[in-house]
Amino acid sequence: MPSRHVWIGRKAMCGEAHAHRCKSCRYVSKAAVNTQADYDYDRPLMKTQVPGPRSKELTKQMGQIQNNTAINFFCNYEESRGNFLVDVDGNRMLDVYTQIASIPIGYNHPALLKVVSDPNNASAFVNRPALGILPPESFVDKLTEGLLTVAPKGLNRVQNMACGSCSNENAYKAMFIWYRNKERGTSIPSDADLSSCMINQLSILSFSGAFHGRTMGCLATTHSKPIHKLDVPSFDWPIAPFPRLQYPLDEHVRENAQEEARCLEETEDLIVKWRHKGMPVAGVVIEPIQAEGGDNHASAAFFISLRKIASKHGCAFHVDEVQTGGGATGRFWAHEHWGAEDPADIVSFSKKLLTGGFFYRDEMETDKPYRIFNTWMGDPSKNLLLAEVLNVIRQENLLAEVTRTGKALLGGLYELQAKYPNLLSRARGQGTFCAIDVCKASVRDKLILQARDNGVILGGCGDLSIRFRPALIFKEHHVHMFLNVFSDLLAAHK
Amino acid sequence: MPSRHVWIGRKAMCGEAHAHRCKSCRYVSKAAVNTQADYDYDRPLMKTQVPGPRSKELTKQMGQIQNNTAINFFCNYEESRGNFLVDVDGNRMLDVYTQIASIPIGYNHPALLKVVSDPNNASAFVNRPALGILPPESFVDKLTEGLLTVAPKGLNRVQNMACGSCSNENAYKAMFIWYRNKERGTSIPSDADLSSCMINQLSILSFSGAFHGRTMGCLATTHSKPIHKLDVPSFDWPIAPFPRLQYPLDEHVRENAQEEARCLEETEDLIVKWRHKGMPVAGVVIEPIQAEGGDNHASAAFFISLRKIASKHGCAFHVDEVQTGGGATGRFWAHEHWGAEDPADIVSFSKKLLTGGFFYRDEMETDKPYRIFNTWMGDPSKNLLLAEVLNVIRQENLLAEVTRTGKALLGGLYELQAKYPNLLSRARGQGTFCAIDVCKASVRDKLILQARDNGVILGGCGDLSIRFRPALIFKEHHVHMFLNVFSDLLAAHK
Repeated sequence: MPSRHVWIGRKAMCGEAHAHRCKSCRYVSKAAVNTQADYDYDRPLMKTQVPGPRSKELTKQMGQIQNNTAINFFCNYEESRGNFLVDVDGNRMLDVYTQIASIPIGYNHPALLKVVSDPNNASAFVNRPALGILPPESFVDKLTEGLLTVAPKGLNRVQNMACGSCSNENAYKAMFIWYRNKERGTSIPSDADLSSCMINQLSILSFSGAFHGRTMGCLATTHSKPIHKLDVPSFDWPIAPFPRLQYPLDEHVRENAQEEARCLEETEDLIVKWRHKGMPVAGVVIEPIQAEGGDNHASAAFFISLRKIASKHGCAFHVDEVQTGGGATGRFWAHEHWGAEDPADIVSFSKKLLTGGFFYRDEMETDKPYRIFNTWMGDPSKNLLLAEVLNVIRQENLLAEVTRTGKALLGGLYELQAKYPNLLSRARGQGTFCAIDVCKASVRDKLILQARDNGVILGGCGDLSIRFRPALIFKEHHVHMFLNVFSDLLAAHK
Repeated sequence: MPSRHVWIGRKAMCGEAHAHRCKSCRYVSKAAVNTQADYDYDRPLMKTQVPGPRSKELTKQMGQIQNNTAINFFCNYEESRGNFLVDVDGNRMLDVYTQIASIPIGYNHPALLKVVSDPNNASAFVNRPALGILPPESFVDKLTEGLLTVAPKGLNRVQNMACGSCSNENAYKAMFIWYRNKERGTSIPSDADLSSCMINQLSILSFSGAFHGRTMGCLATTHSKPIHKLDVPSFDWPIAPFPRLQYPLDEHVRENAQEEARCLEETEDLIVKWRHKGMPVAGVVIEPIQAEGGDNHASAAFFISLRKIASKHGCAFHVDEVQTGGGATGRFWAHEHWGAEDPADIVSFSKKLLTGGFFYRDEMETDKPYRIFNTWMGDPSKNLLLAEVLNVIRQENLLAEVTRTGKALLGGLYELQAKYPNLLSRARGQGTFCAIDVCKASVRDKLILQARDNGVILGGCGDLSIRFRPALIFKEHHVHMFLNVFSDLLAAHK
């Protein structure tokens, strides 16, 4: 099929305002079939530095209302399309970060706009129900046609929630309840149980560098940056070491296996130790790729062994796919790459799935009403949008597309780190869920800002990493747009 | 202005199917000006018992997917209007519970449907931003025209969040951060602070019978029912006694003042005790009316004294208005009834405000980015709807209406408890935020189910209470519909 983007010149990529910076055109897309050509933009277009004057003014105003220190810039979402985010100063940027990995199929996707404009759906947007007691007629069907079509292996049940943190909080609660019922041998608590809730102490084992959210239960398992936890009371729960691997993984198999074996051994020791302390581990929680903590990978063998250790000690195994889930690794769930028969007891999600929640095994079902509960328990209007996102993923075969695009992206990163070994290292990724390390945090931060001024939005993670989190409609020619901008910045770096 | 509802007959109220049960017509609305006559129904209409066959079938199907034991019935939200919720079996019920107090201006309000159908708003529904880093252009205006117009006295700032639990979790975090920075005398943490997050221990003081949510930080301050907390690890935080008052409040001033003095004294003792334990109280959290815990009221003097005790000991004072906020007490915030100059440091909200969040004092602002943060931090599409809800409240003068309707409701409850002193007691309320106690939990539960079969949806709270949580568009003639149904049930009670 012919593409409208067989040749992408540097001028077209950076926008007129920055065209004078463009020196060469090394990365040229050959195969990109731009199925979203009808609604996506074809290139960045920069008019000011970012943030521009209008963003600066609005940020100042926002400072009168709430903390404004994390604001990057203000956006014109109406004008944003596909892979391109437009800001309030008219700058149009290729978005390789997508609202912290939470825009699945790009901005203003026609299929989603149709969901909103359909008068039959209006009620879902204005009458938010208390889903746990008064669900809408269509909700069973929406779950069946939507979330349940992507249920992880062995997990037949799904609990809808509103966001990533409350999904994890409630997944933890489900594990605590399951663990205690298992211990009791009955789901009927004793009077002593009921009157001494404070005394029942259980724990969740998490990993160094993990990020599972910022509400207090989640925060007790989050260890990516001290500023997230500073001053907030926490639980005395075990923290196991996450393997620190060398990349590319297939060139360091022996050393990496040793590192993983060490981490597994320490994990098992901690489970035993915390049981002896009287705070048994009800669940082990882990990300398939530690995202916020710096895109740390581990092998399929590591996760499968960890899952076995959890089972051996009677702990539930919770895979947190809030950032990894939804297709960016080339599979719908990152844990599918493990090829495990029995990958998890609980899998939590949010972000690209537009609604939060967790899948779980039959035996993790709570025994009584109101144990896993809150007023809203999600938002059916998000399930409407999600069902459409899943349709688009299937119709446009986006998981295969992500795999193809991801190869181009990772290949480009390998080339750059070979060319700039003093600047870049540890290129890694699955699908388009990629990252690369920069020699120093200050250089990393500067490169991200420079890329933005040249029309490409990137995000940082961990101490030294740049993370790539494009939408699932990010194609090879978008990879090339990014690589061209980034390689110029590296060439110019002093 | 003439009303279409000057005379509401019992036949009209209960629906044809139950008309044979209607014996009399004592409560007749005289003054109701039914401004929502154009979209509201005029009466319940019952076709089956509730849940009917279709609801039962769907509930069974839901049981294959998730815990279904709290489901009351399935709803046809498309057909629901104003104060009437329609179920999937075609039953139309007067809704005096409104999705656990979270529907502000009734179902399918034309003003809200207009927001959704306006093509200019479509982008807000399909492009959910990471608000903390990339807010939409209109967000400052939406906050200014929306939430900030109802900012509690002295609280100039507002942090948007997604739901009640995450609003409270983040309000607690804001108080922890504020407290430690105050202790340090600087916002710059020491290296020891940064490396020893686990060791920093602070507490939140809450009250017996309180409900502040179910995520783990909130849950540590929730004490309404053991089943909410069972098996879930918690913090060793102080729990003060909430006054157990006699009603009507104005007939028991002396005894109630004694009870409140006792509770204040114990509260102050606990603050001192926890400081000595090395877990100082960073914040005191309280509901203006304990809702989930059984509609427990306290006097304005109690809250004002409590606020002073908190300030005296350097603790922040957090008023949780998640259930009470949004107008149902006849003021926008229940704490306005205190008449305090300086009511709170933090006020949290959700439910009727459609979005979560908390207002806070300037000095409670966090000092750095990413301390109060998550991916979504709310949802701008909810702010669009909220702005319209606030317009309707103003245009239709709904707070005054709620006050008028509430008087009719509470008056009716007083009459009923005078007539059935062995069945009913402790009628109480502010605006339409009313409750009454039933002699036994089993009788309470039975009355709620019978009322539902007769076309009126009520909710329980605490051990023995029925709580009334109608929308702000609930008028006197709706009160009379409810009273007629309820008084027949009481008359028939054996």
